[in-house]
Amino acid sequence: MTTLRVAMIGYGFMGAAHSQGWRTAPRVFDLPAEPDMAVIVGRNAQAVNEAARKWGWAEAATDWRDVIAREDIDVVDIVTPGDSHAEIAIAALETGKHVLCEKPLANTVAEAEAMAEAAERAAARGLRAMVGFTYRRVPAVTLMRNLIAEGAVGTVRQVRASYRQDWLVDPDMPLAWRLQKEHAGSGALGDIGAHAIDLAQFVTGLTLRTVSGVIETIVKERPLLESGAGLSGTAGAGFGKVTVDDIAIFTGRFESGALASFEASRFATGRKNALQIEVSGDKGALAFDLEDLNSVQFYDRTASPDRQGFRKILVTEPEHPYLSGWWPAGHMLGYEHGFSHQVKDLVEGIANGAHPQPTFADGLQVQQVLEAVERSSDNDSAWTRVAAGVPAPAV
Amino acid sequence: MTTLRVAMIGYGFMGAAHSQGWRTAPRVFDLPAEPDMAVIVGRNAQAVNEAARKWGWAEAATDWRDVIAREDIDVVDIVTPGDSHAEIAIAALETGKHVLCEKPLANTVAEAEAMAEAAERAAARGLRAMVGFTYRRVPAVTLMRNLIAEGAVGTVRQVRASYRQDWLVDPDMPLAWRLQKEHAGSGALGDIGAHAIDLAQFVTGLTLRTVSGVIETIVKERPLLESGAGLSGTAGAGFGKVTVDDIAIFTGRFESGALASFEASRFATGRKNALQIEVSGDKGALAFDLEDLNSVQFYDRTASPDRQGFRKILVTEPEHPYLSGWWPAGHMLGYEHGFSHQVKDLVEGIANGAHPQPTFADGLQVQQVLEAVERSSDNDSAWTRVAAGVPAPAV
Amino acid sequence: MTTLRVAMIGYGFMGAAHSQGWRTAPRVFDLPAEPDMAVIVGRNAQAVNEAARKWGWAEAATDWRDVIAREDIDVVDIVTPGDSHAEIAIAALETGKHVLCEKPLANTVAEAEAMAEAAERAAARGLRAMVGFTYRRVPAVTLMRNLIAEGAVGTVRQVRASYRQDWLVDPDMPLAWRLQKEHAGSGALGDIGAHAIDLAQFVTGLTLRTVSGVIETIVKERPLLESGAGLSGTAGAGFGKVTVDDIAIFTGRFESGALASFEASRFATGRKNALQIEVSGDKGALAFDLEDLNSVQFYDRTASPDRQGFRKILVTEPEHPYLSGWWPAGHMLGYEHGFSHQVKDLVEGIANGAHPQPTFADGLQVQQVLEAVERSSDNDSAWTRVAAGVPAPAV
Amino acid sequence: MTTLRVAMIGYGFMGAAHSQGWRTAPRVFDLPAEPDMAVIVGRNAQAVNEAARKWGWAEAATDWRDVIAREDIDVVDIVTPGDSHAEIAIAALETGKHVLCEKPLANTVAEAEAMAEAAERAAARGLRAMVGFTYRRVPAVTLMRNLIAEGAVGTVRQVRASYRQDWLVDPDMPLAWRLQKEHAGSGALGDIGAHAIDLAQFVTGLTLRTVSGVIETIVKERPLLESGAGLSGTAGAGFGKVTVDDIAIFTGRFESGALASFEASRFATGRKNALQIEVSGDKGALAFDLEDLNSVQFYDRTASPDRQGFRKILVTEPEHPYLSGWWPAGHMLGYEHGFSHQVKDLVEGIANGAHPQPTFADGLQVQQVLEAVERSSDNDSAWTRVAAGVPAPAV
Repeated sequence: MTTLRVAMIGYGFMGAAHSQGWRTAPRVFDLPAEPDMAVIVGRNAQAVNEAARKWGWAEAATDWRDVIAREDIDVVDIVTPGDSHAEIAIAALETGKHVLCEKPLANTVAEAEAMAEAAERAAARGLRAMVGFTYRRVPAVTLMRNLIAEGAVGTVRQVRASYRQDWLVDPDMPLAWRLQKEHAGSGALGDIGAHAIDLAQFVTGLTLRTVSGVIETIVKERPLLESGAGLSGTAGAGFGKVTVDDIAIFTGRFESGALASFEASRFATGRKNALQIEVSGDKGALAFDLEDLNSVQFYDRTASPDRQGFRKILVTEPEHPYLSGWWPAGHMLGYEHGFSHQVKDLVEGIANGAHPQPTFADGLQVQQVLEAVERSSDNDSAWTRVAAGVPAPAV
Repeated sequence: MTTLRVAMIGYGFMGAAHSQGWRTAPRVFDLPAEPDMAVIVGRNAQAVNEAARKWGWAEAATDWRDVIAREDIDVVDIVTPGDSHAEIAIAALETGKHVLCEKPLANTVAEAEAMAEAAERAAARGLRAMVGFTYRRVPAVTLMRNLIAEGAVGTVRQVRASYRQDWLVDPDMPLAWRLQKEHAGSGALGDIGAHAIDLAQFVTGLTLRTVSGVIETIVKERPLLESGAGLSGTAGAGFGKVTVDDIAIFTGRFESGALASFEASRFATGRKNALQIEVSGDKGALAFDLEDLNSVQFYDRTASPDRQGFRKILVTEPEHPYLSGWWPAGHMLGYEHGFSHQVKDLVEGIANGAHPQPTFADGLQVQQVLEAVERSSDNDSAWTRVAAGVPAPAV
Repeated sequence: MTTLRVAMIGYGFMGAAHSQGWRTAPRVFDLPAEPDMAVIVGRNAQAVNEAARKWGWAEAATDWRDVIAREDIDVVDIVTPGDSHAEIAIAALETGKHVLCEKPLANTVAEAEAMAEAAERAAARGLRAMVGFTYRRVPAVTLMRNLIAEGAVGTVRQVRASYRQDWLVDPDMPLAWRLQKEHAGSGALGDIGAHAIDLAQFVTGLTLRTVSGVIETIVKERPLLESGAGLSGTAGAGFGKVTVDDIAIFTGRFESGALASFEASRFATGRKNALQIEVSGDKGALAFDLEDLNSVQFYDRTASPDRQGFRKILVTEPEHPYLSGWWPAGHMLGYEHGFSHQVKDLVEGIANGAHPQPTFADGLQVQQVLEAVERSSDNDSAWTRVAAGVPAPAV
Repeated sequence: MTTLRVAMIGYGFMGAAHSQGWRTAPRVFDLPAEPDMAVIVGRNAQAVNEAARKWGWAEAATDWRDVIAREDIDVVDIVTPGDSHAEIAIAALETGKHVLCEKPLANTVAEAEAMAEAAERAAARGLRAMVGFTYRRVPAVTLMRNLIAEGAVGTVRQVRASYRQDWLVDPDMPLAWRLQKEHAGSGALGDIGAHAIDLAQFVTGLTLRTVSGVIETIVKERPLLESGAGLSGTAGAGFGKVTVDDIAIFTGRFESGALASFEASRFATGRKNALQIEVSGDKGALAFDLEDLNSVQFYDRTASPDRQGFRKILVTEPEHPYLSGWWPAGHMLGYEHGFSHQVKDLVEGIANGAHPQPTFADGLQVQQVLEAVERSSDNDSAWTRVAAGVPAPAV
């Protein structure tokens, strides 16, 4: 069997999750090629060596440019912070590697555009470029998309989507880099709102055309980290300014005319990872909650009036997406299973000549929605057009 | 329109609930006769006068024998403790009154038999005798029965029923009369287990033939009430013996051969009024929980394999039982609505010549199940036959 | 005991609910005065006579002006459509009656202002004027307000409120008067969004200062009713134009600066009466759902980190608001209980000299929020200031 | 770091789950020794080679006796059907290997006793013997045990446990080996009831002393598999007799006197993997459901009366058992994570000199409870004493 030699750039929390995907997917699914966890790359030699040992990468390296130049690498998996995505991804594509890039695709629309264009050029040479919106690959979410495509809800009338966490509720939580725009690019909007946007479009098959909304920083100053030298804050001694948003509330309109409401918050006390989406149509409705990720709620308006109700489909049957490789019915999957599904789809895309979704063009389009929300917020919440994107490679 | 003049004997908590039923039913439903809350009866003149005023009865009286002898009374509604049910009900039937008797029908099988026989004799004279298992008339429960009768779950394979409360968890709760066998007849078994038994038989249409189980008193002594003179306790100063059960766990077998598990407990910490029942069949399943009384959960095994799941039917649609008289869809009913439905069914039965369910024969049969459980518990949980009952009046 | 003679103007669905409140409250609570259901008023003599008989009003009348002029009437309860509220309420206050007016207070801000001013003048003469946002009186909602007032959630950081129904999903649902602006005033926004606004302000004790949002009609034409003569529709034969909104999505900002998201929809397939609100603070969170109206969810951030979670408080304990008059713990209340609580609070307010909440000034303020949302929607969702109100009568 | 060379005997569904545990645990936790997936053993050479490739075992072998004799093997992991557990485990312990044996420990009490005795002898030589009740290692279950040990529920008053599946509801499901006593040993009772028993004892720290119950086969004959040669069925052509139970309902009594109700069923339509347990004490209650495995419900009776309720603790915080190795708060775990936790605890036990729980003595004791239930069922559900066990090795 063909081997796909993988280099992963970055080694934070996402590195652990991606490693789990590369390690597990071939042990669960019958893949058309065998991924080889060849090399992990990070700037700190000691830390990256430790990560290689812990996560099972054969080699560690400190210079990503060297690594992507190597002939024996087939796939580059990028899990660094967003500000380096564009440079690495474009270079990797240009040196002939397939690329998997963690979301958000980039910190700016300009970078994302450059990446999508690079991906389009690379597609001509048979390369794949995929962005890591792994929640699409939670089986319940994929089922939701399939059911909608089969007409289970009829015409989509409205969508309600939110992603709520609470890790910033405590005002003493320090000013980490994720709370600074120059490093993180965005706050709740880009980090978790992006997932809500991607899911709303993915499950419905509809595209957002205009948005109106507001983003806001609730706790405006936070204690500096001890290692906070170089932080941009200019506030009172020991405190620095939070420069990304804590909460984003916005409304979107699809090209079909249907409205969708969105909320992303890191201040939703008691909500740990509550990515929720509900799609209402003229024949039925579907609802999903990431905190209950093995199920989807389905309401069928075509049932007898005295028997209608939201049914909780436990998405663990062999008939359900991705489930054939896992456990018997009723045995739950968790968060990281999506990363194995991502590897499966990417490897199959590479082997079978299809472009796995979501493409860089899809990632760019989400970025454009985010940017339109920011512009709307700056403009008294005026309705703002989402910029035109780049065509995705023909599938 | 005909008027039905009602006398209610008793004025405890159940008196309040029955009064609400008599007062409300004619204001919500189009009844074939108009109930008139004529007289309320209790031994304490002051208290019963106050109850009459509070609940809206036209008259108060202290001697139930006088009242049931009156020619201007059509219906006698008995809400006294169980030890007086038989005497009052039989006398009332013999003087030509229709009778509604709160459950349990009686404290002993012998009394219940005498009552069922009296009801059978009275039926020949056109009288109705109904026992107050009002939970049958929660719309979700009636719907459950209807769906099973329509074949929605196919052949019943097993039943799981329980009724759990927690008001005795505190060992300092005093030794009220409800905890003494001579007054209450039974504890958790007869008070709440009886509801679980009645529902299991009602919704499935099946009859329990044999049982095996155990009943037990968890806290064996409790503080005497200050007004505890005359209590039977002989325990240490200030404490008396609890002479009824706190918990009952038993298994029953229907005449079809299917097994049913039962639990009744007043020690289920945190469960306030958790009457739960689940019926599993070869085509589907239905589940109900009294703490969520406006819905029933339905699982349809005949649906497509990837779309099966328990659906929560909100039982508030006009197509649902009893709902046409109430509010628009989605507007919830509560505990006491069952008492209005009971009045509706009784009044319709009187007017239309049908015997409203459950009859005294049904009440006797539940009593016989309870008694079989007690005998089984006394006999090392040996399987024990439920005694044969009395035929119900032809409907 | 003093008697309060009540006249109710109107006899639609709300008339049934209010009648249930007047009939039941004195039978459940110990009121300082006894309401007397004296007269019900409607234009159609036959229909109002039938309503009087069905609901238990002593008299029926066809001219509300005559009735409010009567010396023997103490309270006027207005349950007509919104376009007649102002005229009746102001006249009733001026003739010296206490007034209970169903929400929305009026169809326009101008009318609502006139009403609030009339109420203020009448307060000087000892009269009460209350608007019927009964959901405040669902015990779980009152508990939520009390817990927030006690500091259970700390400083409110954000609010998420929505009211979703689905009765318009079917495009063949005809063009009833509720879908025409000249009669109904507003659609989802004013009918159900008003409840979400009132609750958000009531439970937090905060006031909305600015809003940004969009309202929209999803199904723009509907079949005319056979009896549709006089409808304003000018669309294709047999169809008329829907002139109110089907969905409203908006964001508000409290005077504290905290954001609140709102959604009101009649197109949320499968949601029957889903008024949901969640309040997130720095010490905890509280959430309520009207489809599960006997409970409130409470998250306590001050608990030990390994023991935190949303707890479902079953609001049926004697310690909970309004519960002392009803049933034992665990026995559920339903939709119409709020109307009994409203009568209780109004009668106590009349007897005890306090102005029961919500006052007409509160009702006007909600109307001003609604009007600001409409203006924002007309103005590209620009942030729009809620107009200043009228001071409430000193309590 | 020390390496632990592992041989796994068997390669069915449990082989996949155990492989996932061996592969993942060292990549997630900092283990004191590094497990090496050395050799997988099965009788069919082709199949076991394929399993080795698929699951990542370095070698495949067909004779378990050869493998356990090898000096380079440290740990033997047994995932074969129950009838071969005793022979393999005892031989492995005698040749000086640590043993992990999948549950049930054995098909008979006699075998389990021999295994527990062998484990006791081996303990003297420093060997570990652990039985695979992995559900103890679902973090929510471990937390439940810890909270009870800390006194969170006070004195345990009653336990309610059940494990319900529905894969036998269809009467056309063929007569697999799992439905034949000579191969499977037991049906619902031993396969899933065993988990309920183990959990009830594990979380409470109490031991069952006597039991009363019934086991039953609901569908008594099933179609023979095409490959059914050698099946024991003697029923009508093409059908064979089911010789294990489909459902078990029993009651147990702990040494403390508290009662526990149990149900195990493969006919609970719509329930896929519903292992549920609720522990009620005088200070609180705890409840768990495997179909919602990332949470536990906690009721604290010591809270203020108006704030009590079951709280859903999302067991994904760093303070929770096993969570430090995984993902951020709110990121769910699934079924197979318990197998990584099992490897962690076994490896730590081997390295640190402690006997990891549950020991073979624990496994034997569960077997004795199962056997007592069977005897009770054969004896008209008479209360039956659980046989005395074998002392566990001193920890």
